[in-house]
Amino acid sequence: MSEIYHKIIQMAEEMKPDLSKQRRCLHQYPELGWCEMRTSSLIARKLKDFGYDEVLVGKDVCDAASRMGLPPQEELELQYRRAEKQGADPEFLPATRGGFTGVIGILHCGEGPTVALRFDIDALPLTETLEPSHLPNALGFSSRNPGVMHACGHDGHTTIGLGTAKILVSIRDQLHGTLKLIFQPAEEGVRGAKSIVEKGHLDGVDYVLGAHLNGGTDKTAGSIGAGRGTTLATTKMDVTFSGKAAHAGMSPEKGKNAMLAAVTAVLNLHAIPRFGDAATRVNVGKLTAGSGRNMICDHAKLELEVRGNTAEANQYMEDYAHRIVCAAAAMHDCKVKTEFVGSAKCSLNSPELSELVRKVILEKAGIPTLSSPDGLTGSEDYSYFSERVQQQGGQSCYFLNIVHCAGPFHNPEFDFDEVGLVNGVKAFSVMSANLMNA
Amino acid sequence: MSEIYHKIIQMAEEMKPDLSKQRRCLHQYPELGWCEMRTSSLIARKLKDFGYDEVLVGKDVCDAASRMGLPPQEELELQYRRAEKQGADPEFLPATRGGFTGVIGILHCGEGPTVALRFDIDALPLTETLEPSHLPNALGFSSRNPGVMHACGHDGHTTIGLGTAKILVSIRDQLHGTLKLIFQPAEEGVRGAKSIVEKGHLDGVDYVLGAHLNGGTDKTAGSIGAGRGTTLATTKMDVTFSGKAAHAGMSPEKGKNAMLAAVTAVLNLHAIPRFGDAATRVNVGKLTAGSGRNMICDHAKLELEVRGNTAEANQYMEDYAHRIVCAAAAMHDCKVKTEFVGSAKCSLNSPELSELVRKVILEKAGIPTLSSPDGLTGSEDYSYFSERVQQQGGQSCYFLNIVHCAGPFHNPEFDFDEVGLVNGVKAFSVMSANLMNA
Amino acid sequence: MSEIYHKIIQMAEEMKPDLSKQRRCLHQYPELGWCEMRTSSLIARKLKDFGYDEVLVGKDVCDAASRMGLPPQEELELQYRRAEKQGADPEFLPATRGGFTGVIGILHCGEGPTVALRFDIDALPLTETLEPSHLPNALGFSSRNPGVMHACGHDGHTTIGLGTAKILVSIRDQLHGTLKLIFQPAEEGVRGAKSIVEKGHLDGVDYVLGAHLNGGTDKTAGSIGAGRGTTLATTKMDVTFSGKAAHAGMSPEKGKNAMLAAVTAVLNLHAIPRFGDAATRVNVGKLTAGSGRNMICDHAKLELEVRGNTAEANQYMEDYAHRIVCAAAAMHDCKVKTEFVGSAKCSLNSPELSELVRKVILEKAGIPTLSSPDGLTGSEDYSYFSERVQQQGGQSCYFLNIVHCAGPFHNPEFDFDEVGLVNGVKAFSVMSANLMNA
Amino acid sequence: MSEIYHKIIQMAEEMKPDLSKQRRCLHQYPELGWCEMRTSSLIARKLKDFGYDEVLVGKDVCDAASRMGLPPQEELELQYRRAEKQGADPEFLPATRGGFTGVIGILHCGEGPTVALRFDIDALPLTETLEPSHLPNALGFSSRNPGVMHACGHDGHTTIGLGTAKILVSIRDQLHGTLKLIFQPAEEGVRGAKSIVEKGHLDGVDYVLGAHLNGGTDKTAGSIGAGRGTTLATTKMDVTFSGKAAHAGMSPEKGKNAMLAAVTAVLNLHAIPRFGDAATRVNVGKLTAGSGRNMICDHAKLELEVRGNTAEANQYMEDYAHRIVCAAAAMHDCKVKTEFVGSAKCSLNSPELSELVRKVILEKAGIPTLSSPDGLTGSEDYSYFSERVQQQGGQSCYFLNIVHCAGPFHNPEFDFDEVGLVNGVKAFSVMSANLMNA
Repeated sequence: MSEIYHKIIQMAEEMKPDLSKQRRCLHQYPELGWCEMRTSSLIARKLKDFGYDEVLVGKDVCDAASRMGLPPQEELELQYRRAEKQGADPEFLPATRGGFTGVIGILHCGEGPTVALRFDIDALPLTETLEPSHLPNALGFSSRNPGVMHACGHDGHTTIGLGTAKILVSIRDQLHGTLKLIFQPAEEGVRGAKSIVEKGHLDGVDYVLGAHLNGGTDKTAGSIGAGRGTTLATTKMDVTFSGKAAHAGMSPEKGKNAMLAAVTAVLNLHAIPRFGDAATRVNVGKLTAGSGRNMICDHAKLELEVRGNTAEANQYMEDYAHRIVCAAAAMHDCKVKTEFVGSAKCSLNSPELSELVRKVILEKAGIPTLSSPDGLTGSEDYSYFSERVQQQGGQSCYFLNIVHCAGPFHNPEFDFDEVGLVNGVKAFSVMSANLMNA
Repeated sequence: MSEIYHKIIQMAEEMKPDLSKQRRCLHQYPELGWCEMRTSSLIARKLKDFGYDEVLVGKDVCDAASRMGLPPQEELELQYRRAEKQGADPEFLPATRGGFTGVIGILHCGEGPTVALRFDIDALPLTETLEPSHLPNALGFSSRNPGVMHACGHDGHTTIGLGTAKILVSIRDQLHGTLKLIFQPAEEGVRGAKSIVEKGHLDGVDYVLGAHLNGGTDKTAGSIGAGRGTTLATTKMDVTFSGKAAHAGMSPEKGKNAMLAAVTAVLNLHAIPRFGDAATRVNVGKLTAGSGRNMICDHAKLELEVRGNTAEANQYMEDYAHRIVCAAAAMHDCKVKTEFVGSAKCSLNSPELSELVRKVILEKAGIPTLSSPDGLTGSEDYSYFSERVQQQGGQSCYFLNIVHCAGPFHNPEFDFDEVGLVNGVKAFSVMSANLMNA
Repeated sequence: MSEIYHKIIQMAEEMKPDLSKQRRCLHQYPELGWCEMRTSSLIARKLKDFGYDEVLVGKDVCDAASRMGLPPQEELELQYRRAEKQGADPEFLPATRGGFTGVIGILHCGEGPTVALRFDIDALPLTETLEPSHLPNALGFSSRNPGVMHACGHDGHTTIGLGTAKILVSIRDQLHGTLKLIFQPAEEGVRGAKSIVEKGHLDGVDYVLGAHLNGGTDKTAGSIGAGRGTTLATTKMDVTFSGKAAHAGMSPEKGKNAMLAAVTAVLNLHAIPRFGDAATRVNVGKLTAGSGRNMICDHAKLELEVRGNTAEANQYMEDYAHRIVCAAAAMHDCKVKTEFVGSAKCSLNSPELSELVRKVILEKAGIPTLSSPDGLTGSEDYSYFSERVQQQGGQSCYFLNIVHCAGPFHNPEFDFDEVGLVNGVKAFSVMSANLMNA
Repeated sequence: MSEIYHKIIQMAEEMKPDLSKQRRCLHQYPELGWCEMRTSSLIARKLKDFGYDEVLVGKDVCDAASRMGLPPQEELELQYRRAEKQGADPEFLPATRGGFTGVIGILHCGEGPTVALRFDIDALPLTETLEPSHLPNALGFSSRNPGVMHACGHDGHTTIGLGTAKILVSIRDQLHGTLKLIFQPAEEGVRGAKSIVEKGHLDGVDYVLGAHLNGGTDKTAGSIGAGRGTTLATTKMDVTFSGKAAHAGMSPEKGKNAMLAAVTAVLNLHAIPRFGDAATRVNVGKLTAGSGRNMICDHAKLELEVRGNTAEANQYMEDYAHRIVCAAAAMHDCKVKTEFVGSAKCSLNSPELSELVRKVILEKAGIPTLSSPDGLTGSEDYSYFSERVQQQGGQSCYFLNIVHCAGPFHNPEFDFDEVGLVNGVKAFSVMSANLMNA
């Protein structure tokens, strides 16, 4: 059994230069959620070339109606045209038209457990820094798509997924069971996972693993962390108030002031009482209202999110938020529309699998591991995967791939140490081998 | 015809000392709206002694159900007991029990028009100044009822009504028609007039007159002003929010926060958009909420008013205010109760009667008159009287009895020059004689 | 003297078709304030061809530093290029580069009074309706500039100015004094007048006249109204709050929440207490805040205006508004910047000139006139013109050119009956002749 | 060593009826914080009669200037007179005049550790239920002081302190060290502990113990719980806004609206952003503003508290709250005064002492013990005691005396099973014996 791990480690070491190249190539062409058309086509191309038994694309990946926060069709069309120009794979691109992104590669290896690995592939609406010392600038691989940037490391995640895919297919004879590599779209805004789960791809999965690059200190960088894996449940909403315009000087009383509704909602949303035994969050991150200074504002839009570290607390926040926006609209005789554009669940690692991850990666991949501390107060739609698998009796573990990082995540200066690429490939590969080699 | 006016003027001059005495006596025993029990009993006593044909008291004056802003029964009972102790008239006091205050005196003088005169009799919840230079202190007639004060001149109005009553009964042979002297309770907070109108006392009235003492300059003091007589319509509301208490540290989410509902309502009430072609007002004058620092507030009470110088504008304000308080309650899952505790209408003098007032008072009483300017932005429930009379084809005039005043109205330092007493008696008497002597 | 009026009327009647043509041509190429480059160049061309003694353009018209609410230079440059393509006059266009729009034509006719006529020339940021029944659509002269529309009749005002210019130059021998035709930019947002006054063009003016097309009923359409001419003083401000971003899930306390500052400001701005004896207005017409749902908002911008029908009331509103935005910023530890981007004064017609306008236009132009009612609660930066002229002992009158209109002003459906064009030409021409022919 | 525990248990069992009697007597005469004058005098009487070496009262107990949230002197004087009438001890009462309540009893037992026990003695501003089934009603020992009630079990705590005092003095020969029994005033509102600490009474203390009656289930009632003992740091503030009154109809702009300042503060206080890695709380529990409906509100008072489960988080809340109230006042041109009326620190039990408590009470007193769960999100000014002792190298444990309770704490229906009295006496006595018998 030792032999298989040995082979994995050797292959991973050898592909180091390729991993860097692959990641930098992806970094140059970042695509936003549901627009990862070029990216998806290239992933599918690779998986097919590697020889995966099934390569699912387009409508086979996501449940169309469950795609949250889908951009308008015109936007999707523009993105499609850009993908065409930027070297998308012509065989697989057409399937992504209209926002059908994401890829699933499947390997059937006989009897045995079903193991799913999840890699997220989308980028963020940020303009990459022009600072010359920023590595992507220094080495010439910074974003070519204005206003879009891989500032959350998903270029790395995708690269790790492809590297893992290559290794595992090469040792398929020694694996038992079914392997599913899920390249998920639209993780930012926690929009994509639900539609993959709704399509049924997690049904029957025995083990699911996910990971995120994570900033470490001199002491922790280079290790893999796996702990309780708690994340906050969250609900993302777009709220639109519709009122009626009127001249602000002559007849303000003839209007229906959507701005007053909106600002009343914002203040009260932030004032939702705290929750006794759970942490909660609320944020209205964006607000646009009105068209002209001397007109009573007739429309306003809020982009907001609530969170809770228990399902109950998040539901409390969501319900309260919904009540506030409805009442704020009624108060100023406006109409209101609430659209749910993203959501994640509270997630917890399965303790046994978490322990196994720490043990196997340390012993078989030679990477130091640690029990990562609690208190991560972010949200992840990986939680949809873990919930479905755990509900069916399976196990889940979301681990941290800890490396030195430049700049905070979600920031124009973000960059990560590419040692994380090979570590990630090793970690996913040895874990898959372990689970499927019994 | 000149002879009758001559007699009126002579009588009025002769009663000067009595008027001062009467007013000062009333000033010492001020009573709040619906509690003018001692006051009402003494008015009734006088009218009966003068020989009025009818003296209506108790339930014959006000429509019970239309009495707005009635104090709680216990409070009324306490006031009744105080009146007993403070020398109320034993024959008429019992009829006032339970808040049935106000008196109407009627004189039947054969064929002719029905003329109604209105005098308001209640005081304000203010503590009279202790300043020795304040005349009621210097002369020893300041309020003996703690926290209550005649700071709006209604002690003067009542005195004028009684003086007028005495003169007119003495010339009844020369009058033609019906005279109604209405001593109205609860003008402060515009609560009382409606119930008198609802009882039908203004039906069939051809002319109605009312007046208010008014602060003048060296130039205007001592004159009578009658102009367009515009007043603001107003609606007074008490709004109560009911939520649910909870411990603010352990489980704030289990409460229903009535304070958040209340403060959201207050801010939004003041933010009701202005009205294009009318003046509006809104004020939450009083707010009490909560019981303890560490409990989620479970009840809150707002005392508020809206105004408008057109009926439409006042209605707009009232409707908007009502919508706001309902929505604010819904926003925080609270219950809300709105009680209407006062209202007045927009009022306008009948131009012909206003002109007649200026002419007759100048020529027959020898008092200078002026066309008082517009823009008085207060409210008066005399407006209920004028509206009813004008709707039936009658005429109304509300005039100003202008004198030097110390301190602003509704203020602990308020006092007025008692020359206003004799001027008021002359004005009402000559006008009544004029209207009923044709 | 009758002869000169006869000639004016005849010329005006004859130019009817040309006026329509001119107006429709302007309607097709609407330009926003400070961007009326094509329009200005064509006006200057016409005035020069008519033979005006002086035709001022570019930096000779407006004081550069007093131009309020100037768009960014890039925007001005884009507009300049569009003007080039849309047939601007090549001689006069260059002077307008950088937002130096507006034209003044001067006729020197010897001794006599100086008479200034004011015509505003800018359009609004509105998309014209596509409704086929809308006359500009039916006749094919609707806006060719997306998102910009002459929805306030300034295409008509400009046309009236040019028609008047043509008539008056043709009778210059019979005029005495100096005639100034002022084609003012950027009236919308009350931004342009101040810079013309600051340049000194109103100094020494004896009479100034301005007018606005106005919607009438069957009874009033076709007449000219001149009354007290009251308008509201106003101040327009852009307020920018700067805070600090932070991740809304992980560390909301590390941000400085500019959105909370902004919404608190908006609610309190609308809640500024009303003013006792003056009408006031306040409106935040536009608000943009934040960049992403899960980030603490770090910037917010308010576009607001206050108004008052006395200078004192407007100042009260401006001061209170300024205090609110400063305190709202301080409350959430943000910075705030207030930029004044427009202002107008209270204005009143000179009663004699107003009466003269009614008399002369009725008698000499045969157009019915009326004393227009008070209570126009809009604002006009014509007030800068009238204030300056009246301060120097001159007279001002702003009159209404009343016609049937389709749709309300400032609305995608707006259109006006072109009879207003010839009426406007007659009115300005006979008044100028009257004032300069003594 | 077993013998001493045996004696304690026996004495405790025998005093059961006396404990009930004592508690019921205290329950009948509840006194609010800093007004526990009768209570203090009776405690001092008992301690002196028991033979305590020192009995500190009056100014020897609390540092005068550190007494937070002291009632006005008139109120204290009224309470003093009531205590006189209700059977206070004449020897000790005078020392309490002016709010110098609380008692400390000291026993010197030679060499050994100093052990402090803390018992809080004040009641709550609540009206006890009239419900006949409420035990204090059924047995005739409900509150005789209107509006005041022992609804937090401090009557029980005081009783336990006196029972413990009696037992420990009887076994003084077998104790080594110094025993301090601290009967602390004004725990409600976390006002009293600081002044005792500031007086130096905790200096040199090696062990400090405190306890609270706690509501249990069938499973847990009758046991003692001791766990991590975390409590929230808190700061209590009274905030007063001062503005200027004006007539709301005639000249609202002449006022300075303290209500608008207050409601803006309340909404924004509740909207203070949550804290990333700590729990926070904020509550405005009480708000009173304004005096009359038609006057611009000129004063408003907020009673508020903030909390945090780290010192840093509580400081963040306090600083933010302070900034909000200052800015809200500035916004509406009002003055503001902030008074700090209470505070508690974060507290944690010393793990070794906590473990010892569980072990000793189980083994020596025969009472089941449990490791009480985390997450108590209340505040306790016992934290001042524990902080001072722990800073000096001593140990602290605050444990729960779990019994069946009727009604929630701080509620008119509250009552507790008196088995808690004997359990409390046993627990404190065996722990003291254990710590002082080595």
